[in-house]
Amino acid sequence: MSIAMKNQPPTSGTDSAEHREILEMIANWRKALEARDLDGLVANYADDAELFDVKPPHRLRGPAEIRRVWEQCLPYFPKAFKSEHSDLKVEVSDGLAFVHGLHHVRPIDEPGHPAGQTWIRVTACYRKVDGRWLVAHEHVSMPFDCATGQLAPITNPDA
Amino acid sequence: MSIAMKNQPPTSGTDSAEHREILEMIANWRKALEARDLDGLVANYADDAELFDVKPPHRLRGPAEIRRVWEQCLPYFPKAFKSEHSDLKVEVSDGLAFVHGLHHVRPIDEPGHPAGQTWIRVTACYRKVDGRWLVAHEHVSMPFDCATGQLAPITNPDA
Repeated sequence: MSIAMKNQPPTSGTDSAEHREILEMIANWRKALEARDLDGLVANYADDAELFDVKPPHRLRGPAEIRRVWEQCLPYFPKAFKSEHSDLKVEVSDGLAFVHGLHHVRPIDEPGHPAGQTWIRVTACYRKVDGRWLVAHEHVSMPFDCATGQLAPITNPDA
Repeated sequence: MSIAMKNQPPTSGTDSAEHREILEMIANWRKALEARDLDGLVANYADDAELFDVKPPHRLRGPAEIRRVWEQCLPYFPKAFKSEHSDLKVEVSDGLAFVHGLHHVRPIDEPGHPAGQTWIRVTACYRKVDGRWLVAHEHVSMPFDCATGQLAPITNPDA
């Protein structure tokens, strides 16, 4: 039921049309991010979707709220960049699916840009509504050092 | 397909045996945490479960690794405490399920204990194997302030 990928289309024996559909949605999300396409970024959220974002507030509800936060964040991104996922694992059933892995922004021409210094952990949970997969819940985070309260950047996604 | 609870058994019309089974597993996990029962804490993880924990490493794999981290962490918990969830939302299909909400440790007799100062965001993803729900993936985190890199404690779970 599970497949792993690294920015590649799935090729393993656990491949299925449903897996491909989910991975294609995620690939489209990457293209939307690279193009700063706000509508594309929130195209697949359910109306009651809850996002646990990397930053406060601790919970965002619905595509309009999520879109507003993207609008505020995108000016802090590099001028040009690639959006990359690593080690995405997808599980699918009849009505639900979930995916987890790491996401990264790779700046083009601005190697030291702050947005490119860490990978971020992503979990997305989907439900199928009228034949279409929608994000019901998403959780995005970085770990932190309990002793110091400082963020612990993820520099090696394979570690 | 979704129900909300606040440390209460579900009572709404979306209640089902599968929902109750998942919520009972989570209630048992709370009891295991309060009792510092390491085996109980990892009783329901799949062998290939991946945990994105609040602290590094950014990914733990399998019940043995997760158990070891609990063993290291529990000495930093209050002597006696209650384990509480808020606003748990459960979605269930034939073979997969996911839950998200907030978790909190409420110290007894040590009101200022550091472990009691924030709620933590939790997402758990389950797959059914031979009729039994197992955690395939879990993601636990706190948000942080992008500008300062400081953690942003969640003091009000309903905000």
